[in-house]
Amino acid sequence: MAEDPLSHPALDKAAGEEFLREAFQIILEEAVRKGTDVTEKVCDWRKPQDLQEILDLELRSSGEPQQRVLEHCRDVIRYSVKTCHPRFFNQLFSGLDPHALVGRMITETLNTSQYTYEIAPVFVLMEEVVLKKLRELIGWGSGDGIFCPGGSLSNIYAMNVARYQRFPDSKQTGIWALPRLAVFTSQECHYSVQKGAAFLGIGTDNIYLVGVDERGKMIPADLEKQINKAKSEGACPFFVNATCGTTVLGAFDPLADVADVCERHGAWFHVDAAWGGSALLSRRHRHLLRGIERADSVAWNPHKMLMTGLQCSAFLLRDSSGLLQRCHGANATYLFQTDKFYDVAYDTGDKTIQCGRKVDCLKLWLMWKANGTEGLEKRVDRAFEFTRYLAEEIKKREGFQLVIEPEFINLCFWFVPHSLRGKEGCADYWERLGKVAPAIKERMMKKGSMMVGYQPLGSKVNFFRQVVTNPVVTKQDLDFFLDEIERLGTDL
Amino acid sequence: MAEDPLSHPALDKAAGEEFLREAFQIILEEAVRKGTDVTEKVCDWRKPQDLQEILDLELRSSGEPQQRVLEHCRDVIRYSVKTCHPRFFNQLFSGLDPHALVGRMITETLNTSQYTYEIAPVFVLMEEVVLKKLRELIGWGSGDGIFCPGGSLSNIYAMNVARYQRFPDSKQTGIWALPRLAVFTSQECHYSVQKGAAFLGIGTDNIYLVGVDERGKMIPADLEKQINKAKSEGACPFFVNATCGTTVLGAFDPLADVADVCERHGAWFHVDAAWGGSALLSRRHRHLLRGIERADSVAWNPHKMLMTGLQCSAFLLRDSSGLLQRCHGANATYLFQTDKFYDVAYDTGDKTIQCGRKVDCLKLWLMWKANGTEGLEKRVDRAFEFTRYLAEEIKKREGFQLVIEPEFINLCFWFVPHSLRGKEGCADYWERLGKVAPAIKERMMKKGSMMVGYQPLGSKVNFFRQVVTNPVVTKQDLDFFLDEIERLGTDL
Ligand SMILES: Cc1ncc(COP(=O)(O)O)c(C=O)c1O
Ligand SMILES: Cc1ncc(COP(=O)(O)O)c(C=O)c1O
Repeated sequence: MAEDPLSHPALDKAAGEEFLREAFQIILEEAVRKGTDVTEKVCDWRKPQDLQEILDLELRSSGEPQQRVLEHCRDVIRYSVKTCHPRFFNQLFSGLDPHALVGRMITETLNTSQYTYEIAPVFVLMEEVVLKKLRELIGWGSGDGIFCPGGSLSNIYAMNVARYQRFPDSKQTGIWALPRLAVFTSQECHYSVQKGAAFLGIGTDNIYLVGVDERGKMIPADLEKQINKAKSEGACPFFVNATCGTTVLGAFDPLADVADVCERHGAWFHVDAAWGGSALLSRRHRHLLRGIERADSVAWNPHKMLMTGLQCSAFLLRDSSGLLQRCHGANATYLFQTDKFYDVAYDTGDKTIQCGRKVDCLKLWLMWKANGTEGLEKRVDRAFEFTRYLAEEIKKREGFQLVIEPEFINLCFWFVPHSLRGKEGCADYWERLGKVAPAIKERMMKKGSMMVGYQPLGSKVNFFRQVVTNPVVTKQDLDFFLDEIERLGTDL
Repeated sequence: MAEDPLSHPALDKAAGEEFLREAFQIILEEAVRKGTDVTEKVCDWRKPQDLQEILDLELRSSGEPQQRVLEHCRDVIRYSVKTCHPRFFNQLFSGLDPHALVGRMITETLNTSQYTYEIAPVFVLMEEVVLKKLRELIGWGSGDGIFCPGGSLSNIYAMNVARYQRFPDSKQTGIWALPRLAVFTSQECHYSVQKGAAFLGIGTDNIYLVGVDERGKMIPADLEKQINKAKSEGACPFFVNATCGTTVLGAFDPLADVADVCERHGAWFHVDAAWGGSALLSRRHRHLLRGIERADSVAWNPHKMLMTGLQCSAFLLRDSSGLLQRCHGANATYLFQTDKFYDVAYDTGDKTIQCGRKVDCLKLWLMWKANGTEGLEKRVDRAFEFTRYLAEEIKKREGFQLVIEPEFINLCFWFVPHSLRGKEGCADYWERLGKVAPAIKERMMKKGSMMVGYQPLGSKVNFFRQVVTNPVVTKQDLDFFLDEIERLGTDL
């Protein structure tokens, strides 16, 4: 009689462990060690068509041998961008914290979902501890919150909770019977406000863009003006978004003044501190967020400045009456049974619009345990110091020009090649300058020496936005950064 | 002169590597090896208050020494549920695939965001290959799609894209000027349809629940009736959700018939195949999804049956005109610059409402490479066989009663303790039977011997829903499962 395959495991555990060991070795050497090695490339750039040929991406009927699969692992790492490299300045995240990485690896291995105590006992308790800590830094003694997949969703949650708080019936009835809802945010805000207004059925036309001053900060008087305008147009001003650390310039809206306006008009006051929230860890710099304690809700992404790794975004609420649960809850009986043998108040998963939800707290918790609040504070302070250092260097160097004096750690500047210096008066000066950053970027990518982003902003043509959050970066890397921009761009 | 700290890295790379190595060893031993060891507990259960005391969760000013941090790692693993354990049958996901895990670890180490080719060259190409493969299994030669953080969001995306396709202006104007939108779904559908209707401003009252037959399948004639009812009430029937593999019973709605109704009424036809989609890999069982190729969109979660690990959910569209991008796009100039030196059609991140987006494709791709389509098919077939085996065993055993003959791999049954056998006629029979599953569950959790979920459904009192997707499970584990239910429940 043939052996019954169901009586034997269909997965070879020993072979699996061996594969894990070998792959871990590759990860350590190729991604961690080489990825952070300043003598290696930040990115081994290939055109899409070429990369497609190099990588054998096709999925076939038959499996491939282990050695071939390990080669794929090497290739994936090789041709990926090393965001942990000391010369990666391209995004609002960078660097590799070993404790956070271990937190992520444990998360991935345990592979559970953060919805009930039953299935995630440690993480339900841990999430609450971490959220409480973040709330304390905001200045709240109580409140609520949840980790959610990104700051965009945190901002969108805020808009939905604000709507629900004002018009609780709309959860059932939809928004047809509601007055036209109006959203207020500065023109420098993150695009997730726009995506959220569209997604929630409010519509992007109902966003009133508030003017900013020359530093990119919302003008409270204009906020008031826009609110009054909306009211006169029959709209209901229900939601104000202020940004702490705008994406491009790193500007902080004046929270206390914005809070005053919100109070006067009974609008929900949300603070998008996805980027700038981590400055709360610094005794020296937390003044930038003065007034944040008056917010109704805050979005804060430790995956950016704090280096926890994607995704780690806290949506925090001042409310502690259960608003979040009432707003998002569906009380599914197959998951959130009420006849469980433990206190089901620990089953926090119904606070979100997700069902399965990744554990995003462990990486932050473990890193915090290892470094302490003071260790994290040092990193934040160091990032500010680097920005200061670079800004001063830029002022000393010919051909470099700050777009704006940095208040945070976004360093925005133009590089003016020889051919354009002293030509500010020419009609095509700005048009030609706008082509410099993309050209330098292309050379930099193809060389693999570093990465930094650029963008236009309003009437300002393309400029670089450089950001350092990675604590392995040194002054030497920053000097290299400026030298390299010069080397790559001087002949343009 | 004091040394300038900015001239030195503020993170000790060698110590970091050493920590990674030690932690990996702990992960391998405590989570992978013990976690899958049948002689170990599935969960070392503690009450919330007790667990809070055992774990030192508090975050303090000072960092803790490495050895203490490693102890924390051990504790986190120890008190977490082992979803990879051969006796974990509690969720729609379980098991640990070593290739998928390596994919997750590489993802975590590289820590990039899946929005532009610039920052995720390998993963942008890879995501498209994986999505294309999934679309082919659906039967689509072209189309679109994106990985998003969970099946709930995939379903919500579907609803939003459907609304946009019908009323493109509503992205700008909001939905005030639109007719009342009506959503159709069976009463057995996942609660994310409800969450989505609330979130998108449509309202849960505007969901028309369609009746199901005795096997939990949507009745197409009732769908038609509900659509006509909605029309007569002045609503616009724009979206029909059919489920392939309902959460509790594992029922498959009759897609071809539902498609006919949708066509007649011009409604968007979405298939929530979050759970059942993976049956498409099996030549023996894919007939369950006959008609799926007629859907406008499909949600499919490889993180459930295919064991990729959370989160891995594909939102797939038949449209290839760029609808998804137009619906969700915001064209942020700081990220999606159009003057890049490569073809920006590869910058796919604007198709979602997220900004930063985790890489969810690598784990599935690597697992697929290692196993081939045929290897994955074998796993799917094995899961079906296990369910069949258990269903037959249950029929042979006294005290066990199927709630429904399984069509998929959800095995739903009651256990009737001695005290209740033959008492079906008693007035309080069902009330008492409804207390049996929670009581058994409590004993099981405290003992740590296994985990299986229970829930009530409609008029049916609490019953167990058992699911096997993990290929290390054997017949012996299933025999143990039934024996253990009996042991734990016999005296109730
Ligand atoms: C100010 C601001 N808010 C929100 C976000 C969105 O965060 P996420 O990428 O996590 O969605 C960003 C991202 O860069 C941001 O800069
Ligand atoms: C049928 C069905 N659809 C959607 C979902 C939601 O998937 P996720 O947990 O990834 O949000 C589930 C989850 O169990 C489900 O069973």
